[in-house]
Amino acid sequence: MSHTLQSHIAGRWIGSHAATALRSAINGQTVAHTHAEAIDFAEAVHHARHVGLPNLLALDFQQRAERLKAMAKFLNEHKEQLYAVSAHTGATRADSWIDIEGGSGTLFAYAGVGANELPSGNLVHEGPALALGKTNQFAGTHILVPRGGVAVHINAFNFPVWGLLEKFAPSFLAGMPCIAKPATATSYLTEAAVRLLLSSGLVPEGALQLVIGSTGDLLDQLNGQDVVTFTGSADTAALLRVHPNIVRHSIPFNAEADSLNCAILAPECTPDTAEFALFVKEVAREMTVKAGQKCTAIRRAIVPRQHLDAVAQALRARLAKVVVGDPAVEGVTMGALASHAQLADVNACVAQLRHNHNAELVCGGEGAVPLGAGTAHGAFFAPTLLLCNDPMHNHAVHEIEAFGPVSTLMAYEGLDEAIALAAKGQGSLVASLVTRDPQVAARAIPQLAMLHGRLHILDAQAAPESTGHGSPLPLLKHGGPGRAGGGEELGGLRAVTHYLQRAAVQGSPAMLTAVTGEFVRGAPPLDTGVHPFRRHFEELQIGESLLTHRRTVGEADLVNFGGISGDYFYMHFDEEAAKASPFGARIAHGYFVLSAAAGLFVSPAPGPVLANYGLDTLRFVKPVLIGDTIQARLTCKRKIDKAKKDAKGQGQGVVAWDVEVRNQRGELVASYDILTLVAKKG
Amino acid sequence: MSHTLQSHIAGRWIGSHAATALRSAINGQTVAHTHAEAIDFAEAVHHARHVGLPNLLALDFQQRAERLKAMAKFLNEHKEQLYAVSAHTGATRADSWIDIEGGSGTLFAYAGVGANELPSGNLVHEGPALALGKTNQFAGTHILVPRGGVAVHINAFNFPVWGLLEKFAPSFLAGMPCIAKPATATSYLTEAAVRLLLSSGLVPEGALQLVIGSTGDLLDQLNGQDVVTFTGSADTAALLRVHPNIVRHSIPFNAEADSLNCAILAPECTPDTAEFALFVKEVAREMTVKAGQKCTAIRRAIVPRQHLDAVAQALRARLAKVVVGDPAVEGVTMGALASHAQLADVNACVAQLRHNHNAELVCGGEGAVPLGAGTAHGAFFAPTLLLCNDPMHNHAVHEIEAFGPVSTLMAYEGLDEAIALAAKGQGSLVASLVTRDPQVAARAIPQLAMLHGRLHILDAQAAPESTGHGSPLPLLKHGGPGRAGGGEELGGLRAVTHYLQRAAVQGSPAMLTAVTGEFVRGAPPLDTGVHPFRRHFEELQIGESLLTHRRTVGEADLVNFGGISGDYFYMHFDEEAAKASPFGARIAHGYFVLSAAAGLFVSPAPGPVLANYGLDTLRFVKPVLIGDTIQARLTCKRKIDKAKKDAKGQGQGVVAWDVEVRNQRGELVASYDILTLVAKKG
Repeated sequence: MSHTLQSHIAGRWIGSHAATALRSAINGQTVAHTHAEAIDFAEAVHHARHVGLPNLLALDFQQRAERLKAMAKFLNEHKEQLYAVSAHTGATRADSWIDIEGGSGTLFAYAGVGANELPSGNLVHEGPALALGKTNQFAGTHILVPRGGVAVHINAFNFPVWGLLEKFAPSFLAGMPCIAKPATATSYLTEAAVRLLLSSGLVPEGALQLVIGSTGDLLDQLNGQDVVTFTGSADTAALLRVHPNIVRHSIPFNAEADSLNCAILAPECTPDTAEFALFVKEVAREMTVKAGQKCTAIRRAIVPRQHLDAVAQALRARLAKVVVGDPAVEGVTMGALASHAQLADVNACVAQLRHNHNAELVCGGEGAVPLGAGTAHGAFFAPTLLLCNDPMHNHAVHEIEAFGPVSTLMAYEGLDEAIALAAKGQGSLVASLVTRDPQVAARAIPQLAMLHGRLHILDAQAAPESTGHGSPLPLLKHGGPGRAGGGEELGGLRAVTHYLQRAAVQGSPAMLTAVTGEFVRGAPPLDTGVHPFRRHFEELQIGESLLTHRRTVGEADLVNFGGISGDYFYMHFDEEAAKASPFGARIAHGYFVLSAAAGLFVSPAPGPVLANYGLDTLRFVKPVLIGDTIQARLTCKRKIDKAKKDAKGQGQGVVAWDVEVRNQRGELVASYDILTLVAKKG
Repeated sequence: MSHTLQSHIAGRWIGSHAATALRSAINGQTVAHTHAEAIDFAEAVHHARHVGLPNLLALDFQQRAERLKAMAKFLNEHKEQLYAVSAHTGATRADSWIDIEGGSGTLFAYAGVGANELPSGNLVHEGPALALGKTNQFAGTHILVPRGGVAVHINAFNFPVWGLLEKFAPSFLAGMPCIAKPATATSYLTEAAVRLLLSSGLVPEGALQLVIGSTGDLLDQLNGQDVVTFTGSADTAALLRVHPNIVRHSIPFNAEADSLNCAILAPECTPDTAEFALFVKEVAREMTVKAGQKCTAIRRAIVPRQHLDAVAQALRARLAKVVVGDPAVEGVTMGALASHAQLADVNACVAQLRHNHNAELVCGGEGAVPLGAGTAHGAFFAPTLLLCNDPMHNHAVHEIEAFGPVSTLMAYEGLDEAIALAAKGQGSLVASLVTRDPQVAARAIPQLAMLHGRLHILDAQAAPESTGHGSPLPLLKHGGPGRAGGGEELGGLRAVTHYLQRAAVQGSPAMLTAVTGEFVRGAPPLDTGVHPFRRHFEELQIGESLLTHRRTVGEADLVNFGGISGDYFYMHFDEEAAKASPFGARIAHGYFVLSAAAGLFVSPAPGPVLANYGLDTLRFVKPVLIGDTIQARLTCKRKIDKAKKDAKGQGQGVVAWDVEVRNQRGELVASYDILTLVAKKG
């Protein structure tokens, strides 16, 4: 079944001559070969810049979000193809689920981020605009634009699909063509995923290229508009970070490095508690899922000294039940390491910890006897628990990472020592704190947060829904400081902004309105002679505005509004108390002002404005007193074009309106945005 | 008057033996000497970590913001001391104003950012929290915490005061002790500013240390919790970025490098327009302010070919009026370069551009004959305008930066070529676009934004209030991609977050509430038996909650609410049209639901809740139909302790309340936060 993998460069699949053999982790047989043909990286980057980039920017944020959703669906429909290939990596079905459906789930999540949090067009207005002069003739704001460059994504061997997609999704959404370089050992699975994606017809030409094998002189082709991301070892990250061309052009370089993540069992979790059992289960699970080959796996289990023996015993018992072997064999619960090179590395690290650094063996410690035919030639390793007796002074257990089913148990006295031990990892991707006590969490988490990218608090309440210590989620930040590489991935919209370029923009409000595509106060209002609520989505222009008739607020309004709302607050109804207040008199209800403003600008008959579904940033700037006369200005602020239609097939878009309510002296009394759904003509 | 400068390390002023002489830019006389004594950088970093850090974190964001405000006031009161020293740098009074009052203004601005945008305490909840499971037993959110490390700020010679303070302000606010290393040439002015600041008694011990002279092995003392920022040449930035210890620990390194910023005159700005005159004035001003020694100065003036001669002539005439000399002499409008080394460098760059790269001389081009006694020994250079005839092919004019009163004029044909010329700078801090046409701005700015940190749009409307091409502002991003270093400073709160560490936190809503100090929905409500609106700021606990009585919404409510608001929208009043709508029936006004909810939870008598000043993130989740019964839950979500008191001496804080309005089926119909001012007991 072995075949030669191909790179996808400049629209062509390259590779027919076999080079390095890639072997199955299960039985050592050859799965595929890398290709011998050299890649012209100048051509690849040129293709990304001159074909991929314009193709991506011919779509806008909303349209790219839709594409991501369609790609996610397509991958899910064809996922069994990927599961079949994934088996060679040593993964169980559950391991492959994390990689494959975790990957398509990330595409889905970023489709949602794009649809819900990004505008139409290819420019994000990161407001609010700020007046920079006294009369608001000159204002400033920020915009985010596609960088106009290429994203090079270099990945690790352990998540051939998720690793590709979690980087691809936000960069695609941002409008950057991507050149993906998976780790060679498992590149046969990434190649299968890329082939599948490209076959969907959903990826614009040039938006996704694939490099099998070495990156050659790829990094020398880049400039300051490009981005490089890397997941892998801290050592390789350090090498890439100082690449002369990356340094020369200040190319953003995001690193996600393996780290010695920990789990802490809090002092109050005695062996009879549900949390104690949860801790043991979580550590054992993190050791064995993906055979421990996760950047986020628990490498250090930090427990109260008085419970050390109990934890060791419980973990030993739990790990004894793990069945190692070919996941195709029924009953097998843990597969192989991804490669024989990986096996040699884990063996060496465990030996070093045991023999050079005094770590005791609790269980495991060597190549397992795996179930299944041919597995004697596979890359299997038994779940291995070590014990360190002097963790405050033994630096090795906080530094040497055996990237397999290996963890080290260590004891602490008092929460501060537990936090100090966690810190000895010098920066990790994630820590779990298993605790029953919110006050323990309140004390420990902010300190742990200085050195960890993600913190997972586990208790009996959270456990049934917990996504687990080891799982990065698309909407939460992934990446930690120091040893963990100092990078930041995922986190919802945050990841997209890493692939956009932020610029401050200064100018007159009219200029800022033209540039941002959003109304900036101070720009001249546009009066079309038609009530803006009577215009369809396509007709509405940014800046279209209605200055309403006026309304004098009388005492009867306060009385009536109190009667209908039930709000008899003294500031509206108790003249004596109101006199003694800073306002010195009764004032109208804020919600009356809001309601009366709606009464001023509403257009009662059925029309294109379908619903007012929300309101943002309402500020009651000045009180409205009895006798004041109010007037509202309603201005079309922002339009987001949505492809979706309602149940009746009615197309619609989101329109945000800027509302200013002023008194008879022209003073602003209330200011807010209202959010509406507006029907399309078409 | 020469004296030996001192470093401020570990609470002591170090330095009594003179080393290098620092000379006046005006007359070459020695102003001060650096000190010969070696600095123990391990001690400096140890002091920052173990004295400065705890002292800073004994205060919270709000308190540090107050300190910044007090420091700003103190500096302004003593500013003449700094103006006197600044004269030696060759600066005019106006130049010094940018440096000195620009610096204190930045402290003021960050005091405002802290007071208005940061919470009490030392943890920022970067919400919203997101349910990660179906029953919201497990949720995720983000926090920002002080990094627990040290900020090393390395600065350039041209802004000895502003450069110090624009980096110090956000890092101080974030809770990071800082070690400041000014460029040696003008370190006498930075030393004066630091002495002044420390004499105020407002800077906690260990929060600000000063290095005069070399940084020695300072960078070797740092770890992953620290931050290094740098402003200076691109070459030095590249050297520091690859420092082995910075790389090993993934230490965030922010670079702000000089770049070849440009100003573009748009095609429609003919010589008879106000904008043409504004362009000429801006270019001339940027060439001569600080004798052109600004990272942001206009180095490239890009003009329509048909107006090239007119621009050259107008600029030549304007520059001819510049009077170079000792700014102490009346009538002098431009001072000296900051040092003789700088003078040599500018001379060399201009010679290279002229003689090796075919730039023609329009005016200037050599050492000026300056006014004032002793100025023959000063570092003066005449305003120098060059002309490049083939800017699309002459790379040197886009790369070689003469860091003095030097700019190069170049012509374009068509807006696209102007944008292409701007891009040849390969990443700059700022570009100005002088245009009369918002459509030109809308087309050019997003493209320029890919390669510039800030964009300044200048027209006749903006001009009277424009802060100018060259001025970074505290609330707007400063820093550009590529050649400009790829860094980001200022930008209001953005800069503070660069000195905080972000972590995702997952756990039960109760745990997240305890950790973030903000109520997270799903946490158990706290019922104290007292209406929360009757509790003072100090008494209120996060999570304190009121479940109101209920109210059935009748048709009379719709009718009455329409009557008082004037809102007769068909969805509330036209049964026939409402039936045809997706809701299928008349629904209550959203603002009625909001008002009725206030009526449900209001506590009418005078009490500690002084005012409801705003409302955020209101969403009408489901319609309320005639006959529905609504009920509100009001929960104390967030408290911000403010030191300020009202006119009567009444202390107060900000309290945000989470409001959920549900119908008789328990379905959420409206969701929002209300913002109140709540009185303190004390």
